[in-house]
Amino acid sequence: MSQKITIGKLALLIASLSDEELQAFRSTLDDVAFCQGKVGSMNLQKVISAVETAAKRNRIIHDSLYRETHALYHAILEGIDGVTRGHPSIGEMSRTVGLRFSIVRGRPYKDPDEGEWIAVAFYGTIGAPVKGAEHETFGLGINHI
Amino acid sequence: MSQKITIGKLALLIASLSDEELQAFRSTLDDVAFCQGKVGSMNLQKVISAVETAAKRNRIIHDSLYRETHALYHAILEGIDGVTRGHPSIGEMSRTVGLRFSIVRGRPYKDPDEGEWIAVAFYGTIGAPVKGAEHETFGLGINHI
Amino acid sequence: MSQKITIGKLALLIASLSDEELQAFRSTLDDVAFCQGKVGSMNLQKVISAVETAAKRNRIIHDSLYRETHALYHAILEGIDGVTRGHPSIGEMSRTVGLRFSIVRGRPYKDPDEGEWIAVAFYGTIGAPVKGAEHETFGLGINHI
Amino acid sequence: MSQKITIGKLALLIASLSDEELQAFRSTLDDVAFCQGKVGSMNLQKVISAVETAAKRNRIIHDSLYRETHALYHAILEGIDGVTRGHPSIGEMSRTVGLRFSIVRGRPYKDPDEGEWIAVAFYGTIGAPVKGAEHETFGLGINHI
Amino acid sequence: MSQKITIGKLALLIASLSDEELQAFRSTLDDVAFCQGKVGSMNLQKVISAVETAAKRNRIIHDSLYRETHALYHAILEGIDGVTRGHPSIGEMSRTVGLRFSIVRGRPYKDPDEGEWIAVAFYGTIGAPVKGAEHETFGLGINHI
Amino acid sequence: MSQKITIGKLALLIASLSDEELQAFRSTLDDVAFCQGKVGSMNLQKVISAVETAAKRNRIIHDSLYRETHALYHAILEGIDGVTRGHPSIGEMSRTVGLRFSIVRGRPYKDPDEGEWIAVAFYGTIGAPVKGAEHETFGLGINHI
Ligand SMILES: [Mg+2]
Ligand SMILES: [Mg+2]
Ligand SMILES: [Mg+2]
Ligand SMILES: [Mg+2]
Ligand SMILES: [Mg+2]
Ligand SMILES: [Mg+2]
Repeated sequence: MSQKITIGKLALLIASLSDEELQAFRSTLDDVAFCQGKVGSMNLQKVISAVETAAKRNRIIHDSLYRETHALYHAILEGIDGVTRGHPSIGEMSRTVGLRFSIVRGRPYKDPDEGEWIAVAFYGTIGAPVKGAEHETFGLGINHI
Repeated sequence: MSQKITIGKLALLIASLSDEELQAFRSTLDDVAFCQGKVGSMNLQKVISAVETAAKRNRIIHDSLYRETHALYHAILEGIDGVTRGHPSIGEMSRTVGLRFSIVRGRPYKDPDEGEWIAVAFYGTIGAPVKGAEHETFGLGINHI
Repeated sequence: MSQKITIGKLALLIASLSDEELQAFRSTLDDVAFCQGKVGSMNLQKVISAVETAAKRNRIIHDSLYRETHALYHAILEGIDGVTRGHPSIGEMSRTVGLRFSIVRGRPYKDPDEGEWIAVAFYGTIGAPVKGAEHETFGLGINHI
Repeated sequence: MSQKITIGKLALLIASLSDEELQAFRSTLDDVAFCQGKVGSMNLQKVISAVETAAKRNRIIHDSLYRETHALYHAILEGIDGVTRGHPSIGEMSRTVGLRFSIVRGRPYKDPDEGEWIAVAFYGTIGAPVKGAEHETFGLGINHI
Repeated sequence: MSQKITIGKLALLIASLSDEELQAFRSTLDDVAFCQGKVGSMNLQKVISAVETAAKRNRIIHDSLYRETHALYHAILEGIDGVTRGHPSIGEMSRTVGLRFSIVRGRPYKDPDEGEWIAVAFYGTIGAPVKGAEHETFGLGINHI
Repeated sequence: MSQKITIGKLALLIASLSDEELQAFRSTLDDVAFCQGKVGSMNLQKVISAVETAAKRNRIIHDSLYRETHALYHAILEGIDGVTRGHPSIGEMSRTVGLRFSIVRGRPYKDPDEGEWIAVAFYGTIGAPVKGAEHETFGLGINHI
């Protein structure tokens, strides 16, 4: 891989590992900005908003620049494509999600002109709105920012 | 989570971690059957076949039972949905993938009647058919088997 | 066809034929478990729930096993793909459905190890939320269970 | 249902019933134009062409009018959505189909101004390119013509 | 192009040009029926209804014929596919639209037997539900009527 | 609209207007970089490549920066979503396209920090691979670059 920092892999580890498990990877997080959060909902709009709010509150993206909101939004949607496997819809399809998510911003490529990129990862469960009737799900979106 | 073994998380770690990084998680792999492989192609059919062949060669699924082939096939397709984010097509969309994949089969739920499930994970790059013009991608599919 | 019982064809006949028309096929229903129901809605979640509820109430699936709920859910979604032709959404797309549905569970294959499979069929109308402004629609989903 | 002739139901019966089974419905076919055919392929283009060719050869549609070709094409695609459940692709997704199809043209509505409509139905199997590793599939498309 | 009147191009110009800019094309509008309108919403159902209502109020389509409602509906959905790029959903995906739309009905082909066709175009913005956080979007749908 | 330059509208005009018709809009093109081209094919990969090649040859994007290739690629795909209305596939779906396309790069927003954005527009015909059996189609994609 021609990338020096794999922001996607970092995002998926932050979203899926426990704090203890993540210790081994802590040093690789020094060169990126990141945050994490949790959201459980039957409402896709709330899932998207939770990530956008976390990104702004933790200053991963510039609050007032649409350019950055746009880059993040499409990365979120690509992650949602993985979580929902084809149909970006939750409650309407009679299912619910319980997700941890992470956002990682950094410079993955050696060439400095490639600039900054953003990764959004989701890990958790998707299933019927009944406790335990669920299986794991994962999604990763990547965009230039 | 009501699951005792998270086969999806194991699959994503096997697909994305180096051998060295995976050491810390080795003991958790004792209770599942798994295999891994690599495939690079502009042809989606070859990606699907690579996973199916690995699953059969490593006896993760029963070669002669369509039931098991069917369970694996839909898990692969769900993983491909994550990799391709909505459009399960590679070369036709002028892009190529270089992927590591893993297949994990086990009993995730405490209730033994929930039986066996299978997880398929992909991690690698997707991009233009030009060296370096690519970013990371990930996909996870899960099914009962 | 290598199948001895075509559960999909049985499901489509139960969903679309009148009781009288179905008489000729009654004997072929002896080797399967099945039920039928009706649902009219602009809300996809209600359509999915109607099928799940009928399956549980008629003991076509095991109420407390997620494994069986999962198999049924994906069969329903595949049937909905046929009904909605690509976009699993009803009211949001300003359309409504009036559907009869059927669920058939049986052993389609000669090899007993292929085990049980489930078919879900929908037949009815889809159209504008105006009486008569509608045409026929059909969907069939099949899964191992 | 406000329709006097259910061309969709006729199409699905022609595509899925044996000649013997279809006898009971013969009289209802008097008021429509219809034809049937078979196609087995990993190539979606061949499936579409088989239906178009049958429609023209049997004079179900006007060979030289694009208007009629267009109406038929979209009905075929809607039927393919049911057959492929969301992703209109066969060989690229490492699967093959063996299908019987039917085309029915008639006047379903009581109001003569509603004019002619066309239905396309597919019934058969979809699965891995290995004999027996397949399950049933169905699709129905309807359009004004 | 074998068409004498490009109803799609006329629709896109009506939807996107100012009254002043449209002057240069006025004469080409003499041979078609058309109307225009505006709609801003996070609710896809409202967008679809706005176009349907405008079409009926301006007598572009026959109010009481389902045949014409059906032709228009599928043209609208094809236009929405362009606006939403793949996922016909707005508010649920945490985005909002502000759109001008146009409907053009005419006889595009030289051969009079090709009859009437309808074009629906949308032009405006799509983005986050925050003022200014949006970019342009466009969609065009065409159908025989 | 909070944009001072509507790059999407410029792209759609360049793709759809004749040279003569475009004269009236020439002055508005002074503040953007743009190019145009033509492509006819049953092969989606060729359509995508034609746009990428034109963008590089006309120096609309930086040849050696993946960041710019990535921004353009996603803008092209969004335009293709409009052209193909939901299924980014041409020949496999037994259809062909004849398209003019345009690429416009500029600074649409008043705030200089919003930086550069890119628009890709397609206008032409889609239809059966038979002369004249086709209707108009349009697609527009927009991305930050
Ligand atoms: Mg990308
Ligand atoms: Mg599932
Ligand atoms: Mg299947
Ligand atoms: Mg319809
Ligand atoms: Mg068309
Ligand atoms: Mg965008």
